[in-house]
Amino acid sequence: MFIAMNQFTVIPERAADFETLWRTRESHLQGLKGFVQFSLLRGDEPGDYLSHTIWESREDFIAWTASDAFRQAHAARTPDGILAGHPRARFYEAVIVESGSRSPA
Amino acid sequence: MFIAMNQFTVIPERAADFETLWRTRESHLQGLKGFVQFSLLRGDEPGDYLSHTIWESREDFIAWTASDAFRQAHAARTPDGILAGHPRARFYEAVIVESGSRSPA
Repeated sequence: MFIAMNQFTVIPERAADFETLWRTRESHLQGLKGFVQFSLLRGDEPGDYLSHTIWESREDFIAWTASDAFRQAHAARTPDGILAGHPRARFYEAVIVESGSRSPA
Repeated sequence: MFIAMNQFTVIPERAADFETLWRTRESHLQGLKGFVQFSLLRGDEPGDYLSHTIWESREDFIAWTASDAFRQAHAARTPDGILAGHPRARFYEAVIVESGSRSPA
């Protein structure tokens, strides 16, 4: 399991606009090899957001970044006045995974 | 969906010891209401680790922190000389969730 996170610092007054941008975009993720789950996460700290994508492997993530689906999903940049700084990407490999009886939803 | 993350900065030379501590501990998470998945994630930056726990809701997470299972899982502190600083906890609510055809594994 591989997780790619991108941390966004959003101007708190523009949080609703930021969420709308994500709700209305096409992710182009369905059907991609190794795609497990995408989520947009809102942190308890105002303006703290993570895009959080789970892949079966790092190789699946890398293949996605080289794909047309990636280019299509990233064609539209965030309008000015919403972000307080540059997003910060971080990448993680799972060392231990323990699942409960239910799937994430 | 609610995600609790705890970020650990591990002295890179002690990373193997840190992973062994997690591999050999009892999580006491199975069967808890709302528990979806625990993972220990190793970041690409040396010494960057996240404990990453997915719950169905914030309420389920809060109930866990007040439980005997929580006290049992946190009874043993990390030995000296492994962490380079205090862990940093962060909490996230899912705004959007899009799942692929497979579950995380």
